[in-house]
Amino acid sequence: MEVYLDNSATTRCFDEVAALMTQIMCEDYGNPSSLHRKGVQAEKYIRYAKDVIARNLKVNEKEIFFTSGGTEADNLALIGCAHANCRSGRHLITTQIEHPAVLKTMQHLEEEGFRVTYLPVDKKGCIRLEDLQRAITGETILVSIMHTNNEVGSMQPVGEAGALIKGMNPKILFHVDAVQGYGKCRIYPKKMKIDLLSVSGHKIHGPKGSGFLYVDEKVKIKPIVFGGGQQSGIRSGTENVPAIAGLAKAVEIVYGNLDAEVKKLYCLKRAFVEGVQKMDGIVVNGHCDETGAPHVVSVSIRGVRSEVLLHALEDKDIYVSAGSACSARKPQPSATLRAMGIEEDLLGSTIRFSFSVFTTMEEINYTLQTMYDIIPMLRKYTGERGSRRR
Amino acid sequence: MEVYLDNSATTRCFDEVAALMTQIMCEDYGNPSSLHRKGVQAEKYIRYAKDVIARNLKVNEKEIFFTSGGTEADNLALIGCAHANCRSGRHLITTQIEHPAVLKTMQHLEEEGFRVTYLPVDKKGCIRLEDLQRAITGETILVSIMHTNNEVGSMQPVGEAGALIKGMNPKILFHVDAVQGYGKCRIYPKKMKIDLLSVSGHKIHGPKGSGFLYVDEKVKIKPIVFGGGQQSGIRSGTENVPAIAGLAKAVEIVYGNLDAEVKKLYCLKRAFVEGVQKMDGIVVNGHCDETGAPHVVSVSIRGVRSEVLLHALEDKDIYVSAGSACSARKPQPSATLRAMGIEEDLLGSTIRFSFSVFTTMEEINYTLQTMYDIIPMLRKYTGERGSRRR
Repeated sequence: MEVYLDNSATTRCFDEVAALMTQIMCEDYGNPSSLHRKGVQAEKYIRYAKDVIARNLKVNEKEIFFTSGGTEADNLALIGCAHANCRSGRHLITTQIEHPAVLKTMQHLEEEGFRVTYLPVDKKGCIRLEDLQRAITGETILVSIMHTNNEVGSMQPVGEAGALIKGMNPKILFHVDAVQGYGKCRIYPKKMKIDLLSVSGHKIHGPKGSGFLYVDEKVKIKPIVFGGGQQSGIRSGTENVPAIAGLAKAVEIVYGNLDAEVKKLYCLKRAFVEGVQKMDGIVVNGHCDETGAPHVVSVSIRGVRSEVLLHALEDKDIYVSAGSACSARKPQPSATLRAMGIEEDLLGSTIRFSFSVFTTMEEINYTLQTMYDIIPMLRKYTGERGSRRR
Repeated sequence: MEVYLDNSATTRCFDEVAALMTQIMCEDYGNPSSLHRKGVQAEKYIRYAKDVIARNLKVNEKEIFFTSGGTEADNLALIGCAHANCRSGRHLITTQIEHPAVLKTMQHLEEEGFRVTYLPVDKKGCIRLEDLQRAITGETILVSIMHTNNEVGSMQPVGEAGALIKGMNPKILFHVDAVQGYGKCRIYPKKMKIDLLSVSGHKIHGPKGSGFLYVDEKVKIKPIVFGGGQQSGIRSGTENVPAIAGLAKAVEIVYGNLDAEVKKLYCLKRAFVEGVQKMDGIVVNGHCDETGAPHVVSVSIRGVRSEVLLHALEDKDIYVSAGSACSARKPQPSATLRAMGIEEDLLGSTIRFSFSVFTTMEEINYTLQTMYDIIPMLRKYTGERGSRRR
């Protein structure tokens, strides 16, 4: 049995998405900027995709801008807004547990002269609203808080943060990186006072190289890529029509059956958490219940190095991540786990299991049984450093 | 008969490309940053693609960086090098006939304080080397010259320009936008003294949303998108594995039969040029022979507005462009045609016909016959302004 439990890294594309993309690539392949029928046809796919996403978020379709993925969406939101609004102030706020697409972009903006506050998190990986409140100054122009953490699945109080920020100063922009949260719950930017929302396609069974940034129509933003002026000049470059249509198709499928799928995911999560907790020397990081994301379980296994367990599971055709996959294979201690105050010894002994609509209870049981079988053995023969402290 | 003659705007994807992408999206869908087998498998596609492209260009595979397309490649080259090398000088050189991905990026850099010289072109749409020589100063850090113009198909003396630039100052970086030229001839950056080369996938029957930037290993360049540190930190974001593999597949197919296909394209071009020249009041812009690109013919038709002819041809299932498709449907006089000194009257009466490997002689003949049939009628009933001066 092949068990893919690395869905926070990337997901299998829906067959319907691939089929639609093939049709567009080989038949409806026009350039949406072309004035003839093949161009108009291509543009229709884009308009339809915008419409699907806008209705899903309850926003205007003019507020959707397609990007090459979540990373570009985050970069466009942060750099684009920082540059467009720097006359109002040069202070930005984010959290210590953001994805590198936000953290590294913030560091870049620091080099440009912006000041950035990185909010700490509690032991479960959530920010405290009072920290946010204290961090906001008259110089603050933007707050960026992720919806769902990619390593431990902690869900941030995004709605409350939006209300707090706008209550203090309606002009402060609120960006939410929803790459891990979108497709797992309903997100309504207007209601939650979110001005900018980043989404990636390949985390929701859509194509890699797809994503979008929602930008409230009142937001001042500058492009970070210049050219032919596509997408109202906010994102130049021939639109990636197949990927855009594929992304919208994935949104339709995922949200078409959201409640049932999320219920199933929580069911899998509960069974998995209960199963791993039967073992000794196990810490489940973040929220084990429905206050955490339905699809991510982070487990620290005392006395076993992450990579050793990862490869041992791989030998049994179970695919998981040591921390997050999004940091280009650099094995470095997780900033998220450290910010949560995880014991130093466990930082290198943490595995992320992440589920999807394709995950079955049979796969969960197989994974648990495999862990029961191999972890005692791994503890015995490897990971001396960790086991010493048991 | 459907006749697609807008291949400079975008091309039909090869079936083999779409099939490979489907396989990767639905089966080999791992994240190349994941440490397990599915990640390693995904990374293999990237390594293979780099190898294909590096061998094609006779460069090192470490010098290939995948982007979301030609526009991003141009932006990365120009902004990335301007920012990384601004201590050596703040003067940039380009031409008046570049694609907006270069022109608009140069304008952005001007706003940042860089000085940009825009080289004029001759009546055929080619720069003069003496203008380039005169433009280079001790402050010049980068020259960007397109390989093949997207509107008229003029091919710039890129090899001679490279030798001239490096002869004057080897430290000046030489960027070439080869979005229209790649796939139509062999380009060897090392031999031609090109430091950076931009390529787009969807112009050579590869996927939209794919492209690469070749960067000579000695070049200092900064990223323009920040995140997980993929691609040596030069382009963060989960690699678009299906599109990267699809791009490489297109390169293999196109270059596997290049000489025969280019010969065929010149044959089609010759027949088409001879055919249109049989009509009165026709100007073929740029080089009609093999000194121009094999796949682009720009025709000004006195007394007929471009859009009128475009839609009349569309009614006969022939798809062409008024100027270039890459400027997001903004009907504005072409900067390229203006720089070439085309008569003011003809600026709005110009159509671009662009061919591909799928174009047949039968299609060319059908297009010519259609033009013979409709142009006299269009001249009679429309386009008063143009016809007055005949």
